[in-house]
Amino acid sequence: MVYVTRRSTFSASHRLYNPAFSDQQNEALFDKCANPRGHGHNYVLEVTVGGEPREETGYVIDLKKLKEIIKCEVLDKVDHKHLNHDVEFMRGIIPTAENIAKVLWNILESKITEGRLYSVRLHETENNIVEYRGAS
Amino acid sequence: MVYVTRRSTFSASHRLYNPAFSDQQNEALFDKCANPRGHGHNYVLEVTVGGEPREETGYVIDLKKLKEIIKCEVLDKVDHKHLNHDVEFMRGIIPTAENIAKVLWNILESKITEGRLYSVRLHETENNIVEYRGAS
Amino acid sequence: MVYVTRRSTFSASHRLYNPAFSDQQNEALFDKCANPRGHGHNYVLEVTVGGEPREETGYVIDLKKLKEIIKCEVLDKVDHKHLNHDVEFMRGIIPTAENIAKVLWNILESKITEGRLYSVRLHETENNIVEYRGAS
Amino acid sequence: MVYVTRRSTFSASHRLYNPAFSDQQNEALFDKCANPRGHGHNYVLEVTVGGEPREETGYVIDLKKLKEIIKCEVLDKVDHKHLNHDVEFMRGIIPTAENIAKVLWNILESKITEGRLYSVRLHETENNIVEYRGAS
Amino acid sequence: MVYVTRRSTFSASHRLYNPAFSDQQNEALFDKCANPRGHGHNYVLEVTVGGEPREETGYVIDLKKLKEIIKCEVLDKVDHKHLNHDVEFMRGIIPTAENIAKVLWNILESKITEGRLYSVRLHETENNIVEYRGAS
Amino acid sequence: MVYVTRRSTFSASHRLYNPAFSDQQNEALFDKCANPRGHGHNYVLEVTVGGEPREETGYVIDLKKLKEIIKCEVLDKVDHKHLNHDVEFMRGIIPTAENIAKVLWNILESKITEGRLYSVRLHETENNIVEYRGAS
Repeated sequence: MVYVTRRSTFSASHRLYNPAFSDQQNEALFDKCANPRGHGHNYVLEVTVGGEPREETGYVIDLKKLKEIIKCEVLDKVDHKHLNHDVEFMRGIIPTAENIAKVLWNILESKITEGRLYSVRLHETENNIVEYRGAS
Repeated sequence: MVYVTRRSTFSASHRLYNPAFSDQQNEALFDKCANPRGHGHNYVLEVTVGGEPREETGYVIDLKKLKEIIKCEVLDKVDHKHLNHDVEFMRGIIPTAENIAKVLWNILESKITEGRLYSVRLHETENNIVEYRGAS
Repeated sequence: MVYVTRRSTFSASHRLYNPAFSDQQNEALFDKCANPRGHGHNYVLEVTVGGEPREETGYVIDLKKLKEIIKCEVLDKVDHKHLNHDVEFMRGIIPTAENIAKVLWNILESKITEGRLYSVRLHETENNIVEYRGAS
Repeated sequence: MVYVTRRSTFSASHRLYNPAFSDQQNEALFDKCANPRGHGHNYVLEVTVGGEPREETGYVIDLKKLKEIIKCEVLDKVDHKHLNHDVEFMRGIIPTAENIAKVLWNILESKITEGRLYSVRLHETENNIVEYRGAS
Repeated sequence: MVYVTRRSTFSASHRLYNPAFSDQQNEALFDKCANPRGHGHNYVLEVTVGGEPREETGYVIDLKKLKEIIKCEVLDKVDHKHLNHDVEFMRGIIPTAENIAKVLWNILESKITEGRLYSVRLHETENNIVEYRGAS
Repeated sequence: MVYVTRRSTFSASHRLYNPAFSDQQNEALFDKCANPRGHGHNYVLEVTVGGEPREETGYVIDLKKLKEIIKCEVLDKVDHKHLNHDVEFMRGIIPTAENIAKVLWNILESKITEGRLYSVRLHETENNIVEYRGAS
């Protein structure tokens, strides 16, 4: 198995807020991340696909193809957007980095037909990073 | 002259929009940066102060002091905020990186009493950076 | 399982020296790292916790809480210190990056009550990095 | 087990081209990576060795020794070279990052006598990264 | 004056060689950079434009526009190319970072019609960087 | 003028302490930087030389030569050392980043015989940076 990673970035805003709770409870849970108007990040997304390099190409998956999948399925839908309001696939989900990584995994897994999705890693800031490797 | 730089970061959202123009004009001017709900960035702020190191300390300005000034005057007011709505000193100003840098210069200049403010540098993304060195 | 990582930094000095050996042997083993007065690094510490995001928060562990644990248990005790002399929990341990990572694991493991400690990664320089994932 | 990583860099050129195919097919498969004159990268190589730190040194493997192995076995042979033409151990192999990582694994594995080679990670660009952890 | 910088990257190969000299002299002058088959880099290009932000947009120059100029005039012509053989505007020029920066300045200067080109900065590796600010 | 920068790193320890003051005064001035045993950093040093590229080489100064000067004059003397005790040229100087940069300037200026020293930039941490461009 060789693991192939494509790194990309997108800029989005979000607000951490659970509608089941009061504003006060949300503030207690999420602190400044619950600010009503939201705030934003330059997210760094690392998508890793594992597989055997093919004899004819030496590729697990052509990174230009992986780049295109990530662009169509993810970046075009989240870049310069508000994750709580503008993104269909985030509806009803608290947009923590953990939850975003899981959603992106579910979206990408079936689209990757050479090799298999191994990891979705998401940097929310330079100090806060999450990774999801699927339900095992 | 020695130049001393303090780097810090904040996460905020913004929308590029000029109220003097129609929505269509704003979209033509600002493209996806005009999305109504806004988007966000992990801004990297580099504040540079120039001066002579003092004999007794070897400091132009104590970086702990500079850090504190930047925290009180800037970070506490913009971090996890929406720059168009939540920040007093950005009111009525289109929050491009250029304009933010100029505003931050004006705020910081008078607060720095050891050495003199030399530059405010703001990274909006890893590829887009602005710098302001004051009106000369 | 989602893996959540908090990155932080500290500046410390150390000397690689085994008191069971002569100075000459230490120099042979550790070369310039055995210099009597020590030298130092900007260590980068990455602590990773694994777990299921909670329904109500979307968090494996609140990163503000993880940050606080790392600050109290580690950073406050090692930052701007000499690891051979000033740090209780390093007493009698050769402060290689390997050994520091293992010690930090042992300190942090019991303090993390949401999710489970998965990895302690320590960058001694930009080119030298160690990781410990516990005794399995 | 502690995992010890040494990061190094080399600058080389390569061309992705499979001699079993026509030029047209190569262009279809490899696009601009098939340009006849080749192009190049600043490769970043991360070699990870796993093992138990020794009692007397606190080292899994002395990183100066690992650095020397990587220099002699890899860097001296690929740095400032054309991977398709100048490098003995790449002869007949399409120099994708995947294939380079596998070849470097095979070269390094037997040379590392303290601990065991765990991973060879190769960054071709800041956005394209591969990792090989051996045939299991 | 505000300074606006756009960072981009390209991968190319080159060879340092002065045809006025013998092979031996070239090797003496350029060492391993004179290897006949060439080698390559991931160049990082930072283009800085200075000017006053416009009242209506808050932009010195729309960075999407600057990005487009850099793409058309530079990246499309050098990315995945051999600088000695494939690039019209490098013909007859020894492709040191210094010379590339000067050539790119001359190409870009007239294309930038909002603000004025202030600096072309080129990173050949993470340790070797050149900057050109025009003939004054 | 083209500006050529060589980046290098060294690991050293230091203590900020002015012998003219009491321990209490030193602590008030330098806080945790005055800890008696010292602490350390991975310093990043950027040396910039300005000049015209030579016709025959396209070089302002051969970066291999600049690298060698920096190694002999600086790195060999400060790497893995305690700046207050082990380094001749720092004797009697409070080793703030400001003062180190000025000392390194004075050492390097006369050694650079192609082009002229333009700037010495020193990163003490990823957030604290100083630059000296000489007395003008």
